[in-house]
Amino acid sequence: MSHSTVFAAEMPWPDYQKRVQNGDVPVLIPLGSMEQHGHHMPMHVDVLLPTEFARRVARQVGALVAPPFTYGYKSHQKSGGGNFFPGTTSLDGATLVNALKDVVKEFVRHGVRNLCIVNGHFENSWFITEAIDLALRELDWGDIHDVKVVVLSYWDFVDQASIEKLYPNGFLGWDIEHGGVLETSLMLRLHPDLVSLQDAVEHAPATFPPYDVYPAKPEWTPASGTLSSPKEATAEKGDILLDVCTRGIAEALKAEFGLPAALAKTN
Amino acid sequence: MSHSTVFAAEMPWPDYQKRVQNGDVPVLIPLGSMEQHGHHMPMHVDVLLPTEFARRVARQVGALVAPPFTYGYKSHQKSGGGNFFPGTTSLDGATLVNALKDVVKEFVRHGVRNLCIVNGHFENSWFITEAIDLALRELDWGDIHDVKVVVLSYWDFVDQASIEKLYPNGFLGWDIEHGGVLETSLMLRLHPDLVSLQDAVEHAPATFPPYDVYPAKPEWTPASGTLSSPKEATAEKGDILLDVCTRGIAEALKAEFGLPAALAKTN
Amino acid sequence: MSHSTVFAAEMPWPDYQKRVQNGDVPVLIPLGSMEQHGHHMPMHVDVLLPTEFARRVARQVGALVAPPFTYGYKSHQKSGGGNFFPGTTSLDGATLVNALKDVVKEFVRHGVRNLCIVNGHFENSWFITEAIDLALRELDWGDIHDVKVVVLSYWDFVDQASIEKLYPNGFLGWDIEHGGVLETSLMLRLHPDLVSLQDAVEHAPATFPPYDVYPAKPEWTPASGTLSSPKEATAEKGDILLDVCTRGIAEALKAEFGLPAALAKTN
Amino acid sequence: MSHSTVFAAEMPWPDYQKRVQNGDVPVLIPLGSMEQHGHHMPMHVDVLLPTEFARRVARQVGALVAPPFTYGYKSHQKSGGGNFFPGTTSLDGATLVNALKDVVKEFVRHGVRNLCIVNGHFENSWFITEAIDLALRELDWGDIHDVKVVVLSYWDFVDQASIEKLYPNGFLGWDIEHGGVLETSLMLRLHPDLVSLQDAVEHAPATFPPYDVYPAKPEWTPASGTLSSPKEATAEKGDILLDVCTRGIAEALKAEFGLPAALAKTN
Amino acid sequence: MSHSTVFAAEMPWPDYQKRVQNGDVPVLIPLGSMEQHGHHMPMHVDVLLPTEFARRVARQVGALVAPPFTYGYKSHQKSGGGNFFPGTTSLDGATLVNALKDVVKEFVRHGVRNLCIVNGHFENSWFITEAIDLALRELDWGDIHDVKVVVLSYWDFVDQASIEKLYPNGFLGWDIEHGGVLETSLMLRLHPDLVSLQDAVEHAPATFPPYDVYPAKPEWTPASGTLSSPKEATAEKGDILLDVCTRGIAEALKAEFGLPAALAKTN
Amino acid sequence: MSHSTVFAAEMPWPDYQKRVQNGDVPVLIPLGSMEQHGHHMPMHVDVLLPTEFARRVARQVGALVAPPFTYGYKSHQKSGGGNFFPGTTSLDGATLVNALKDVVKEFVRHGVRNLCIVNGHFENSWFITEAIDLALRELDWGDIHDVKVVVLSYWDFVDQASIEKLYPNGFLGWDIEHGGVLETSLMLRLHPDLVSLQDAVEHAPATFPPYDVYPAKPEWTPASGTLSSPKEATAEKGDILLDVCTRGIAEALKAEFGLPAALAKTN
Repeated sequence: MSHSTVFAAEMPWPDYQKRVQNGDVPVLIPLGSMEQHGHHMPMHVDVLLPTEFARRVARQVGALVAPPFTYGYKSHQKSGGGNFFPGTTSLDGATLVNALKDVVKEFVRHGVRNLCIVNGHFENSWFITEAIDLALRELDWGDIHDVKVVVLSYWDFVDQASIEKLYPNGFLGWDIEHGGVLETSLMLRLHPDLVSLQDAVEHAPATFPPYDVYPAKPEWTPASGTLSSPKEATAEKGDILLDVCTRGIAEALKAEFGLPAALAKTN
Repeated sequence: MSHSTVFAAEMPWPDYQKRVQNGDVPVLIPLGSMEQHGHHMPMHVDVLLPTEFARRVARQVGALVAPPFTYGYKSHQKSGGGNFFPGTTSLDGATLVNALKDVVKEFVRHGVRNLCIVNGHFENSWFITEAIDLALRELDWGDIHDVKVVVLSYWDFVDQASIEKLYPNGFLGWDIEHGGVLETSLMLRLHPDLVSLQDAVEHAPATFPPYDVYPAKPEWTPASGTLSSPKEATAEKGDILLDVCTRGIAEALKAEFGLPAALAKTN
Repeated sequence: MSHSTVFAAEMPWPDYQKRVQNGDVPVLIPLGSMEQHGHHMPMHVDVLLPTEFARRVARQVGALVAPPFTYGYKSHQKSGGGNFFPGTTSLDGATLVNALKDVVKEFVRHGVRNLCIVNGHFENSWFITEAIDLALRELDWGDIHDVKVVVLSYWDFVDQASIEKLYPNGFLGWDIEHGGVLETSLMLRLHPDLVSLQDAVEHAPATFPPYDVYPAKPEWTPASGTLSSPKEATAEKGDILLDVCTRGIAEALKAEFGLPAALAKTN
Repeated sequence: MSHSTVFAAEMPWPDYQKRVQNGDVPVLIPLGSMEQHGHHMPMHVDVLLPTEFARRVARQVGALVAPPFTYGYKSHQKSGGGNFFPGTTSLDGATLVNALKDVVKEFVRHGVRNLCIVNGHFENSWFITEAIDLALRELDWGDIHDVKVVVLSYWDFVDQASIEKLYPNGFLGWDIEHGGVLETSLMLRLHPDLVSLQDAVEHAPATFPPYDVYPAKPEWTPASGTLSSPKEATAEKGDILLDVCTRGIAEALKAEFGLPAALAKTN
Repeated sequence: MSHSTVFAAEMPWPDYQKRVQNGDVPVLIPLGSMEQHGHHMPMHVDVLLPTEFARRVARQVGALVAPPFTYGYKSHQKSGGGNFFPGTTSLDGATLVNALKDVVKEFVRHGVRNLCIVNGHFENSWFITEAIDLALRELDWGDIHDVKVVVLSYWDFVDQASIEKLYPNGFLGWDIEHGGVLETSLMLRLHPDLVSLQDAVEHAPATFPPYDVYPAKPEWTPASGTLSSPKEATAEKGDILLDVCTRGIAEALKAEFGLPAALAKTN
Repeated sequence: MSHSTVFAAEMPWPDYQKRVQNGDVPVLIPLGSMEQHGHHMPMHVDVLLPTEFARRVARQVGALVAPPFTYGYKSHQKSGGGNFFPGTTSLDGATLVNALKDVVKEFVRHGVRNLCIVNGHFENSWFITEAIDLALRELDWGDIHDVKVVVLSYWDFVDQASIEKLYPNGFLGWDIEHGGVLETSLMLRLHPDLVSLQDAVEHAPATFPPYDVYPAKPEWTPASGTLSSPKEATAEKGDILLDVCTRGIAEALKAEFGLPAALAKTN
């Protein structure tokens, strides 16, 4: 068995323990969802993508990757189509908060002091914030005060130059990228067998009024479930995204965790 | 893209919807843990094994497999070594209860009426019971009364004849099989690259007094983390286990869900 | 006593009952916070502003205004400076979710069927989403299926034309408007006695890396607590904002609640 | 802007910080409700009155007043008419407990060490007790052991001499004072525009059997919602009440918090 | 075995089922505490007394008695001395609420429709209110709308005539009766072997300021833990109390539950 | 009054305080249930038996016995017949966890450092585990690190030699002993007046498939509610059980708590 894996759960515990016990090695936790992503993509896109970013970054900075969260918070109409779609399978807010809080505290028990939440599902964002706040509070009660957590969503690392390459006809915002060029390009690059672009439905970008209505109004969401057309997605755009986001995340972790050069591995 | 997958999250939502909307197709939910399994096996054994049983059974009975739960309840000293091991990463009981409750209710929203929890981590058992009880209560409040849930742990389907083949020198109980012949044989058969039997520590089966003590006493658990020696594990024993458990679970689901012959697929 | 008030809590219950019992009259619930807003503004800006928008809209569309929520979710570093500031006084996520859920269900018990959450504090957003989802779920359990809730933040109704008038030198996003031109202009127009613009600290707009860190790093937030300079704020800009947002919200409610003309009052 | 306000939320944070950072200045938190108070009074009586007592006391003892809780615990039949009245808008017990717990802990984070809960709604009482107990427990976990909380309901400071002046025909207990002489006199003195005594319904004092029944029996409560007649209320009685309660509360706080003379301001 | 017991838990289930399945037979649930009651009485007074009242009333009206709650809410300084005493062993408010809610719903599942909470510990009162409210809400969600619950504390049935006999020198209120004449007289009559009146500490009735302080100030409570002297307690006074309270409770239940004469048994 | 009782709640608080304040004296907490036990036994068997074991052990080792938990977790079909039986009255898992957590923490507040949970109801087991884990976590937050808790179910102390005497025709496992020879023999020895063996229903031992189904299938449970026949129960077997379990538990506590000889009392 090669121990070169960065996935913590693929290691026997003594190997893992050696890596984390002094607290230097960061642990990256991918957070996803099971959520419809249109006619052309599977429902675990939000698990596959942050897990892959975490894997690449972990290789570069000498970190480990925890098992991903396979379910996330409820799909919001304006960023995921709405939680009324069949297939979309979500947790209540408090459930996600407690699950992430529990897991963070366990990694700290092992000795980990630097954690990074790698989010792949926009709707998880604020419940991550709350989970980390509560985890740090409880760690503080237990007299552990030296834990640092970086929270990020991978798409926030796409810079303006890349956006211009990816969206030559103009960029309309990350929120309506659900099932669009961003995610589809990455999937075409990483899991082409799971994408059937010919089944994608072409439609104008979704537009919404400046408010939400509950219960959600299905007629506001394009019937396909995507919020913008993925037709312009390509594996080459996937390469651009992989590159800029991986690099950005790796730099962020190096800056925040003060990673000694010795930890970094070449892939 | 081939839609022959049984993994629900690998499907686009319209394909999934076609399968589940009339309620006949069961959904199997694997429940695992991230838990130390000795020096010779990785920490996601309890995720890999129930997911594989679920996959095989789903093929046979025409069911679908949900994304696995990658974290589970706290490791108990007498069945998992204890929750003090580095690497073991667990949820509070209430967190697991709520997560499973949420997910079950979502599948029912999609139209699913027959569910099966395929457990791979002994300590999850009673929190599964509670989760299902609460989910059915809430579904009842929502005037949904026709949901049926089968709950099982795969090792409970090993029959006496198989036990005699697997443990020719005598069987000491499933509880001390943590990291022992059962799990190691299955892993040798399914994921030999993740097992390094040469690193396994040979020791006499763990024995415990007829009570528990908290905080747990690490000296009660063999230092390796396994509760019985895996040295007699073989891929052939893995075949026996795969066969008897898959067959048993498939029969149980056919009996309980009254599956029409038309649903069953050949693998 | 004049019963011309739109504030539900200023009415005796029989007057209130007459208004709401048939379900036509919407109830607007302002949600705020107690949060630092720089050196030049008080800490209840996020209560005063949505309450005033609610009052104006209620007058126009014949609605009622519920007592405001005086405390809200934790201040986030990138949209409110961070929850480490003295004075900022926040609720846990679950507390806010439950409080709003309880209150919504009570208004429905009275007969109300159309509700609008008028948010004045960005960080409340996702906990409002969850509260409404849980409230509708519980109402559904109680066999009440005809409730409709509009959720909005007043600034989302500022249109592009107004933005150009308000920010002639360019607009950098609502998130860094914390304590800036938007809120200060409204306060100058509505509560000039509570603003001391001469105490405002001029500084470049806050910039943040594309990730969050916890515990928050106070050095990322301008020392004043504002995220952009309020120096360009004027009461005239406040008038523009009052006008465009009040009009937008009123139109949204008329559209969503199908308000009969008879309900609308002139102010 | 005059900084002479005692309302914490009316201050910019630097002014507030100066006042509270060394812990000497007490913070008073008014707790109310939205609850029917008969045909002659609005539904926020229980917010207005404790807020005014807090304001007056704060002036005298050099304290600050936090934003009031605008919603409270469920109206009880024998002290508020019952929670079945339209307009009465209440929180679950756990919600109130958590909200007050959160807010108390935040003030302590700012540096406050002396807090006073000024209750205006009888039914809040035991949930205040629980909230303070839980807040002190969590502060203790966080190694903060020097917080002191005074809990009071303003009417408990009415002495025997005042009772004789207020109720020359005999006093029947605070519980049936809901919407009666006590609250109406105070409102006549403080907010005469919000009282229409001519709309009050005269009736004999409510009498109840020595037990409760759930669901509540509406026929036990006078149809008006008041539990005793407010007809004898006068602004002069309001003066007596304002005087005796303000004085009593101020003395209590001076005694418990050992307030240095230097803090006290004249109004 | 004689089935003449009124204690439901002393019956085999088929006997119990016969009694409760049509919903006519009320179930009485005694609620107590483990709480210090001075030097002369044991700590389960609040369990023994309501259980005995429940037993006597059940005999008279043909009801059954559920197992008592052996732990209750936290002792309050002004009615139980304070929760800082050794021996006093209390539940959090939410725990008591949920426990009583669960149990009430279970009795309703059995067929019971008339329930009575017989409280023996003052501090339980408001958490009983909340538990019953939540239980009825959840039963309503489950489409059960015909449950009626009477909530009472036995001492509230002592009438004025009895008070004059029991307290010839004047009565100071039930709150300071903790460990005093009321409870001691009942214990002398029912469990004289558990009372050692010679160990009672004589002291003036406890007096408290009109507010509470947290953490509680032990010096406010008489060192004995009783709030008034039990020295005037006698078994004869116990007879008076047993008689008036049993009669009052029985009449209340007959009135509220419309008990058919056929159900009443002679003792 | 004789203070020779081992029941903590039968003592006045000063006597109790003397015993527990230095932490040496263990406190034993019996946990039971209200659960059907067939046609021949009452529903509080699971309270009576652990309380009696606790009493006997406490006498031997110088411990005290806390009031028993009179309600427990839901009856499971394979070990208690199922929670659908009339009379079975159960708590949700979270309720039991919180109640036991609260009580353990209170005993620690009194000074107790050695606790033993004496379980009489199989289904409580995992919720006890969770309660103790959470209690120790919170005690740790409060900087109390020297608490030790032994958790046991009395039947686990029956040794092989006794099993052969008790079940001369073969032993089928503790799970189907519900209402069978074990419990009935103990009840015949301790409470013969509560057993009517002639009403017991003779039937073959219950057999179940290797999985659970929810909602439970009543037809799987013998109609009597017992899972094996109690007909072979005798008071003599009760003596064997009393002896072996009492002795085993006492030895366990002596070993774990290092009880000084001076504490042991003769009965």
